[in-house]
Amino acid sequence: MIAAQGYAAPAADQPLVPFSFERRDVGPHDVRIEILFCGVCHSDIHQARNEWGSSMFPMVPGHEIVGRVTEVGAHVKSFKKGDLAGVGCMVDSCQHCAECNEGLEQYCDNGFVGTYSAKDKDGSITQGGYSNNIVVTEKFVLHVSEKLDLSRVAPLLCAGITTWSPLRQWKAKAGDRVAVIGLGGLGHMAVKFAAAMGCEVTVLSTSPGKEADAKALGAHKFVVTKEEGAMQSISNYFDLIINTVSAPIDLMPYVASLRLDGTMVLLGVPPEAAQLHAFNLIAKRRRIAGSLIGGIQETQDMLDFCAEHNVMSDVEVINIDYINEAYERMMQSDVKYRFVIDMDSLKA
Amino acid sequence: MIAAQGYAAPAADQPLVPFSFERRDVGPHDVRIEILFCGVCHSDIHQARNEWGSSMFPMVPGHEIVGRVTEVGAHVKSFKKGDLAGVGCMVDSCQHCAECNEGLEQYCDNGFVGTYSAKDKDGSITQGGYSNNIVVTEKFVLHVSEKLDLSRVAPLLCAGITTWSPLRQWKAKAGDRVAVIGLGGLGHMAVKFAAAMGCEVTVLSTSPGKEADAKALGAHKFVVTKEEGAMQSISNYFDLIINTVSAPIDLMPYVASLRLDGTMVLLGVPPEAAQLHAFNLIAKRRRIAGSLIGGIQETQDMLDFCAEHNVMSDVEVINIDYINEAYERMMQSDVKYRFVIDMDSLKA
Repeated sequence: MIAAQGYAAPAADQPLVPFSFERRDVGPHDVRIEILFCGVCHSDIHQARNEWGSSMFPMVPGHEIVGRVTEVGAHVKSFKKGDLAGVGCMVDSCQHCAECNEGLEQYCDNGFVGTYSAKDKDGSITQGGYSNNIVVTEKFVLHVSEKLDLSRVAPLLCAGITTWSPLRQWKAKAGDRVAVIGLGGLGHMAVKFAAAMGCEVTVLSTSPGKEADAKALGAHKFVVTKEEGAMQSISNYFDLIINTVSAPIDLMPYVASLRLDGTMVLLGVPPEAAQLHAFNLIAKRRRIAGSLIGGIQETQDMLDFCAEHNVMSDVEVINIDYINEAYERMMQSDVKYRFVIDMDSLKA
Repeated sequence: MIAAQGYAAPAADQPLVPFSFERRDVGPHDVRIEILFCGVCHSDIHQARNEWGSSMFPMVPGHEIVGRVTEVGAHVKSFKKGDLAGVGCMVDSCQHCAECNEGLEQYCDNGFVGTYSAKDKDGSITQGGYSNNIVVTEKFVLHVSEKLDLSRVAPLLCAGITTWSPLRQWKAKAGDRVAVIGLGGLGHMAVKFAAAMGCEVTVLSTSPGKEADAKALGAHKFVVTKEEGAMQSISNYFDLIINTVSAPIDLMPYVASLRLDGTMVLLGVPPEAAQLHAFNLIAKRRRIAGSLIGGIQETQDMLDFCAEHNVMSDVEVINIDYINEAYERMMQSDVKYRFVIDMDSLKA
C-alpha cells in the first residue's frame, strides 16, 4: 500500500481536517500521480455534508486533479513517469456496457466509480484529490499539456467537461445563439467554450453587477432577467441554453426564450422539482434535457482544445488549510470562479 | 358570399345546434370543398366550451376535414373540380417567416390561422368543418387518395399528423423502441404509424383491459404501468415516448423508462404543470420535448404514406345530430378511437 496525506471530512457535520490514509499499490494497468493542484467543486461540499444522502466517511473530496506521473504499471502504454496527468469525476466504470463501449462512461449502465466516496471494483472506498497522490487505472487518466498553467487546468476536469459536453452534444457552432444561466464555476467555462466555438454568447443573470465580468469572459450580451421587459426581449431567441443553476428557479421564462427546436440543458440538480408547462415546449417544439459531466475521450478532446486555444479556468489558488473557509465563501458565491488547492501547501 | 350550413356552439355553456352562416367567395387562390366527413377532436370540446379562454362564438368546430373540390380560383394550380381534398388544423399562416419558409407553418412566427375560432387575414372569424362546405387558400389544402375509406382518412388531418410529425422529427426507424402513453384518438394513430415504420411499439396503460386492442392496432408489447415492478421492468428502455395524455400525470416514472439520449414528446396540454426532477434527465442525458401538429408538406407526406401503406384511423361514423352525445362519450373516453361526422346527415 502507498501512504497518502490529505484533508478529509470525518463526518457530515465536521470541518475538513488533515488525514493520513493509504492508496492501493500500482497494478499492471495503474498510473500513480503526484497531485499538484485540485479544484474545489460545489459537489465536494454537497458530498462532504452528505446532502445527497450517500456519503461515506471519512471522505477526502476532490475530482479536479492535475499532477505528474511518478510510477506506471507494467501494461500501461500511454503514460510514463514524468508525464503530466489529469483525473476527473470518474476513476473507473464497468468498461463493457453499451455506454462504456461508446466512450460514454459517465452513463455506464452499471454505474461509474466516482473519484471519491464511491465503492471501487476491489471493494475499497475511493478517496479524492485533496491529497498528495492518487492511483488510477490508465483508461481514466487524461493527458495534460505542458503549455498551460496547471492551477487553471484543474477545474477543466469537472467544470470544464460538464459544460463542454452539452455544447458538443447539441452541436453549438459559429453563429449559434447560446445562453448561459449562472456565472459560477460551470457557467464561466460555458461562456469561454461557447465563445471559443464562435457562438453568440448571452449571460442571463439576476445581478446587473456581473455584466463587466461576463463580457470579460467572452460573453457578447448580458441580460438582467429581472428587469421589466427583459425576458420578452429574448423571446424565441436562443438555440441552446446551458443552465448551470442548482438552486430552485422557474425554468419556464427561460424556456420561452428558446427558438424553434431550441434546447435548455440542465446541469445542476435543484433540491426540489421544477414546474413544467407542456405548452411552453409544444409551441415551438422546444426541448429540455440533462447532461452529466462527459466521457473520457471527450474529456481528452476538451483538454486538447484548451491547450490549442489557450482556454483555462479563472481561479483563486489557495492553501489546503483554507479549505473550510473556501467552502463558506462558495456558499456565498464569493469566488471567481473556482478555488484550486495548491497541493504544495500540504507539505507545509 | 357562399351559404353554408353546419352545427355551432352558440356559447360556451350551450350544446351545438344547427347553424346557417356564410363563407367567403372563392378568390383567385382559393379552393371550395364540399365536406364529406369531419373528425371530432378532443380540442373541439375544449374550444366549444371555451376551456382555453380564447373562443369566439358562435363557433362551428371541426379541423379534420375531407371532401370534394367543387370550385377553384383562377390561379389555383394543384386542384381541380372533382378532386378529393383535406383540410387540417390550419387554413393559413403568414407564409413569409422563417418557420413558414421551412414548411413549419404550425410554428409560424406570426401565428397560423386556425381552421375555426380564429381571426382570418381578412378579419373574419374562421368556421370549421362541422358544415357542408369550406373555402381555403390552396396552400393549406391537402390531396387525398381515392383509394382509402374517406371517413377513416378524416382524423389523419389532426390526430394523424400530430403523431406522425414527432415520429419523423425524432427519426423513429425500424427496430427503435417506441412507447405510446394514452390509447385515444392520437395514441391509436401513434401505434399504427410507429408499427408501420418498423418500430417495436409498447403501449403504456393503466388499464389491463386495453391490451387486446393495443395489440390489434399493431403494438408488440403492453405494460400495465400500475402493476408492481412494471416500471422497473422498462427502466432505461425506450428510444422515444409519444405522450398523448392531456390529463395531469407524473411524467417522471415514464422519463426513467427512456434509455440514453431518449426523448419523451409531449403532445397534450394538461391543465396543471408537471413536476420535473432534473436528475432524471441528467442521469441518462434524457430529453423532454413538445410537438404541435405538423406542417403542410409534412401532412401531405403523411397522407401519401397512409395511401401507400393502407393506414387509416379506427372510427365510429355518426350523424351530425349526435354530436352533443358524442362529446359526452368522449369525456368518458368511450370511443374507438375517433368519432367522424358523415356530412350527408346534414341534409336529412
